[in-house]
Amino acid sequence: MNQIPVAVLGATGSVGQRFISLLDNHPWFKVTALAASDRSVGQAYSKTCRWVLAEPMPDYARDMLVVPATPESFETKIVFSALPADLAKELEPQFAQAGFAVCSNASSYRRADDVPLLLPEINADHIALVKEQRKLRGWSGCITTNPNCTSTGLTIALKALDDSFGVKKVFAVSLQALSGAGYPGVSSMDITDNVIPFIGGEEDKVEWEPRKMLGKLSGDKINLADIKFSAHTNRVAVIDGHTVCASVEFENPVSPEDAIRALNNFQAQAAARDLPSTPQPVILVHNEADRPQPRLDRLTGKGMTTVVGRVRADPLFHLKFVVLSHNTIRGAAGGSIYNAELLVHEGLL
Amino acid sequence: MNQIPVAVLGATGSVGQRFISLLDNHPWFKVTALAASDRSVGQAYSKTCRWVLAEPMPDYARDMLVVPATPESFETKIVFSALPADLAKELEPQFAQAGFAVCSNASSYRRADDVPLLLPEINADHIALVKEQRKLRGWSGCITTNPNCTSTGLTIALKALDDSFGVKKVFAVSLQALSGAGYPGVSSMDITDNVIPFIGGEEDKVEWEPRKMLGKLSGDKINLADIKFSAHTNRVAVIDGHTVCASVEFENPVSPEDAIRALNNFQAQAAARDLPSTPQPVILVHNEADRPQPRLDRLTGKGMTTVVGRVRADPLFHLKFVVLSHNTIRGAAGGSIYNAELLVHEGLL
Amino acid sequence: MNQIPVAVLGATGSVGQRFISLLDNHPWFKVTALAASDRSVGQAYSKTCRWVLAEPMPDYARDMLVVPATPESFETKIVFSALPADLAKELEPQFAQAGFAVCSNASSYRRADDVPLLLPEINADHIALVKEQRKLRGWSGCITTNPNCTSTGLTIALKALDDSFGVKKVFAVSLQALSGAGYPGVSSMDITDNVIPFIGGEEDKVEWEPRKMLGKLSGDKINLADIKFSAHTNRVAVIDGHTVCASVEFENPVSPEDAIRALNNFQAQAAARDLPSTPQPVILVHNEADRPQPRLDRLTGKGMTTVVGRVRADPLFHLKFVVLSHNTIRGAAGGSIYNAELLVHEGLL
Amino acid sequence: MNQIPVAVLGATGSVGQRFISLLDNHPWFKVTALAASDRSVGQAYSKTCRWVLAEPMPDYARDMLVVPATPESFETKIVFSALPADLAKELEPQFAQAGFAVCSNASSYRRADDVPLLLPEINADHIALVKEQRKLRGWSGCITTNPNCTSTGLTIALKALDDSFGVKKVFAVSLQALSGAGYPGVSSMDITDNVIPFIGGEEDKVEWEPRKMLGKLSGDKINLADIKFSAHTNRVAVIDGHTVCASVEFENPVSPEDAIRALNNFQAQAAARDLPSTPQPVILVHNEADRPQPRLDRLTGKGMTTVVGRVRADPLFHLKFVVLSHNTIRGAAGGSIYNAELLVHEGLL
Repeated sequence: MNQIPVAVLGATGSVGQRFISLLDNHPWFKVTALAASDRSVGQAYSKTCRWVLAEPMPDYARDMLVVPATPESFETKIVFSALPADLAKELEPQFAQAGFAVCSNASSYRRADDVPLLLPEINADHIALVKEQRKLRGWSGCITTNPNCTSTGLTIALKALDDSFGVKKVFAVSLQALSGAGYPGVSSMDITDNVIPFIGGEEDKVEWEPRKMLGKLSGDKINLADIKFSAHTNRVAVIDGHTVCASVEFENPVSPEDAIRALNNFQAQAAARDLPSTPQPVILVHNEADRPQPRLDRLTGKGMTTVVGRVRADPLFHLKFVVLSHNTIRGAAGGSIYNAELLVHEGLL
Repeated sequence: MNQIPVAVLGATGSVGQRFISLLDNHPWFKVTALAASDRSVGQAYSKTCRWVLAEPMPDYARDMLVVPATPESFETKIVFSALPADLAKELEPQFAQAGFAVCSNASSYRRADDVPLLLPEINADHIALVKEQRKLRGWSGCITTNPNCTSTGLTIALKALDDSFGVKKVFAVSLQALSGAGYPGVSSMDITDNVIPFIGGEEDKVEWEPRKMLGKLSGDKINLADIKFSAHTNRVAVIDGHTVCASVEFENPVSPEDAIRALNNFQAQAAARDLPSTPQPVILVHNEADRPQPRLDRLTGKGMTTVVGRVRADPLFHLKFVVLSHNTIRGAAGGSIYNAELLVHEGLL
Repeated sequence: MNQIPVAVLGATGSVGQRFISLLDNHPWFKVTALAASDRSVGQAYSKTCRWVLAEPMPDYARDMLVVPATPESFETKIVFSALPADLAKELEPQFAQAGFAVCSNASSYRRADDVPLLLPEINADHIALVKEQRKLRGWSGCITTNPNCTSTGLTIALKALDDSFGVKKVFAVSLQALSGAGYPGVSSMDITDNVIPFIGGEEDKVEWEPRKMLGKLSGDKINLADIKFSAHTNRVAVIDGHTVCASVEFENPVSPEDAIRALNNFQAQAAARDLPSTPQPVILVHNEADRPQPRLDRLTGKGMTTVVGRVRADPLFHLKFVVLSHNTIRGAAGGSIYNAELLVHEGLL
Repeated sequence: MNQIPVAVLGATGSVGQRFISLLDNHPWFKVTALAASDRSVGQAYSKTCRWVLAEPMPDYARDMLVVPATPESFETKIVFSALPADLAKELEPQFAQAGFAVCSNASSYRRADDVPLLLPEINADHIALVKEQRKLRGWSGCITTNPNCTSTGLTIALKALDDSFGVKKVFAVSLQALSGAGYPGVSSMDITDNVIPFIGGEEDKVEWEPRKMLGKLSGDKINLADIKFSAHTNRVAVIDGHTVCASVEFENPVSPEDAIRALNNFQAQAAARDLPSTPQPVILVHNEADRPQPRLDRLTGKGMTTVVGRVRADPLFHLKFVVLSHNTIRGAAGGSIYNAELLVHEGLL
């Protein structure tokens, strides 16, 4: 099979590195361009990048020369964007205009009405917005986005429950990993023997993004789900893996047993069920009293599975549970790649 | 002034050590006996105790010979109990029967109708249960208790708000310190690069104990406060200081500004206002966006102050905020000592 | 190919778990028995074992019933021993007597004259002791051992240098991972925001074991290498991966460039060069100023490679460098498996 | 008593903060000026400084307006310099020229022949260089320096041993705290579950600075001590407190008992024995097998004491031991303050 050429924007940052690592030996995609800031342009990737992943830098990337983040630099169909939000806001439309499918991890266009905010296992149908987007904006390419890393696992678990029981209210408190803040990110002086009960802008995202993803596609737009969220977000001394404690109120009371059954039975939407990055399984429910834990469970399903545990009754709402998701795989680069696979599957390149 | 002789039960454990440290140079109390298990009896304290506090072992304790935890071993008025719950259940009544005022950190009698569960700054009046207890049980001594370490700061903050606005519902998610599990307690293999989203029995305590402490004394009993709690409890890689993220619903909407004013204006109950361990201040409200943090704030007011921050509107309930309390000072040994001071002040020895 | 049946003694401990994980899909070996203490005997492995590895428990092990650690329980050729030293001392000879090849990670027989202490890439020829051992002890089986986890990487790096330049004196200071102490092992209260500059018995091992492994086989015995060691051993807050800072004096001055060349050119001994667990490469030398680092480098060569960096001149001796080795893979279970492969290759089962 | 007005240069950095904290309630000194970079000038200290110490910001500093780091800004006798090395190199002579006694924590002038590198408890007599410095440079003020934080504790311990036994060779491996790198300093991504075996420029300092401090004053210059050092320096996940593993060769063999006696008997030089910052005791020797440990021992003697443990025989040299010193108190701000006290005591302001 001919592989589809892809590029990574923001290739030297920590999310960019995760893209490069996950795309090594991808069955459909082949990385042919790495873009980064002027400081790096023209240098071999291995010379200009401070690699921070535990997995070694893939050989294919080592000698690639870094190019500028401009459409003219590329001869690919897909560009993965690990750009910071301000740059993404400016550059991603230029790429979409120039005919590239931009699969973005940035927050810049998540709230745009015509840009799909995708977790393919739960809302692959939202990809239909791409046609509307092309019509409205006159683009031959497109932009798709994946949600904030903390919203990711929570929303997938909620979808399985919402389908069966109707979610009304969600209280969510996160214990988030350091890698979510990039590199150098959080100072060791701030997190050793400590917790930081604040992450700028994060609570807004967790309170809004799930409503779009759990919303229904109606014609050419998404009706936000009628669910109320309250979020507290915290940083803890964990390398990878965001843990979320959630309490949920449903339309009617739900037993833990029924909830566990719904979570275990949940299947990816048909269009997203057999893609290379489809999580296997989509959701894993742990029975042990003290799981999920980030160090032990974050790599479940190669970091793409949403891991749930401690499903139990809640005295105020109906259910309490804990959700864990790998923030830089399912919650960032892996999510964008899954989105790109969906675009290919749907013939939208 | 003649100092009152006091003893510590469970003197070699981590809470016992905190008692010994906090009682060094106490203006009213003088430690004259240290009790521990058979393994330690007869040995010099410094020889048998593996000291785990950062503060050095006080000189007064080094050469004291450890005695058995039996009433006959002591000639003190007050015994501080740092016993495990099962031992506390058996031994504390023997001491109360024998005329000692037992100020206990154990959970065994917190739910007994005639045993006060005290945070003197908010419910010093509950000490009145001691008279009822003596009458019912025929004791010349008594048992008083302080709450679970996670309930402590949360309940103090809630009291300030309840007095002004009437609390109805509380969501509380804790990020708890390692010292709360004692020594050796949590394995380093379980908490390095990790979070444990489970602490046995803890959520029940956090959902029940505040209701007793916020309850009203009516004649000789406490009417539990009509407040509903939902708690999630987590262990994180912090030495000391429990952080709690709380969302609260009141009888009527409350603005963050009004809430901050109520927290700042809160004063200890009169009987508990000028004791040696009275927190100075009782509650401190931080304005910085990212506070309180355990490493930076746990020693506020010598570890007795309840530190609050991030007071803001909640989309589901009315208010969100973060509470921090030092779990082995205000939430354990320091709390028991404060209770003993209240007993002295009220003439109840 | 018919796989060779093997067993694991001490299967529920942390090294036992690593054996079970590494033997999953091993091309030559198939685990057919798991032995542990009486408490676990008769139970399914997944029910009785508290799994502490980040990699999930292999499916093959989940339903195996745990058997007692007695020769009668097994129908295997090889037993891997993850027993504590006192039990190993008693039980391993019983297995060897009964015809099993015992590949042990325990320290009990490392110093026995007729028991090979093996790092196959550097001293595969020491396997010749097995014949002497069988003759002396009348065993149809045998015992082979792998060294202490801290000696492992250090000795491999020293061998590459010793072959070329003749090592005379070695200063070695370790920064050792938590997993080396087993589970629960080190208390989180002892290592959070801390270092423990002491590991019982470890310095003796590091000062003696390399001398046996770097010694020459002469007839049926090993002449200890004439090298003097001084070791300091420390525990640090790292999950896996022992770091050793070494200063080495040679027979003649050696430049860093020559040393790096010798390290890079080092090849496993012929008999151990193409086994399933042969490290690829045996030694990796990093050029970056701040490597090796445990989190980034411990999984080099699937955790079997010895990683060296910071090779530079030493003002007192000749060379300074840093060595990193995965303590529970190359330094424990992986090492024992490599030894077993060598036994098979040499026809010594 | 009239207090001497002092200033802090680089007041907003982490060492600057430690100066401000340690100078709170100092019996001789009163802070009357805080200088920092242009960004902060004119603002209240509490508004412009991100405070990172666990001890709260002293009240005296909160409302002080930050001034530029120029001699004209000050009306003090002493300026404490927490400047980065490049700025210190430029600015400190301007202050000395203008008549200020500069007590510097920067490395810029430590190697200048006429600038004393002081640890008053061991080389208070080196203060005599100040007169030579004034003569040579025509300054009415002066510059004194304190050594690198890792050299500090090591050199103090070595001095006690050198006086009695004559030190010849020292092998030293550090495990250094995060606070030594300032703020934000080390990224949490680099040190969580990790060790960094490299600190830029540090090994050179540890191999040179002790030779000056252990050198003899001869007329108006210091003869470097004839001792050879080899240092490896590592960063570990500890907030405060540098641990050093040392092996030492003496002129003649020394027993651990004799070494412990020499360490315990060591007294500060007479001129430095009764100053406000004199460590009490200068050196503390621990008998426990696993001490010193940074979290438990760094605050010994208010962070000014050098803590030694594990004194034992070394197979290569004569003695092995472990030294711990608080890197931002004894090893930085506290050291500069102690130097200033010595200047006052010697009438050199």
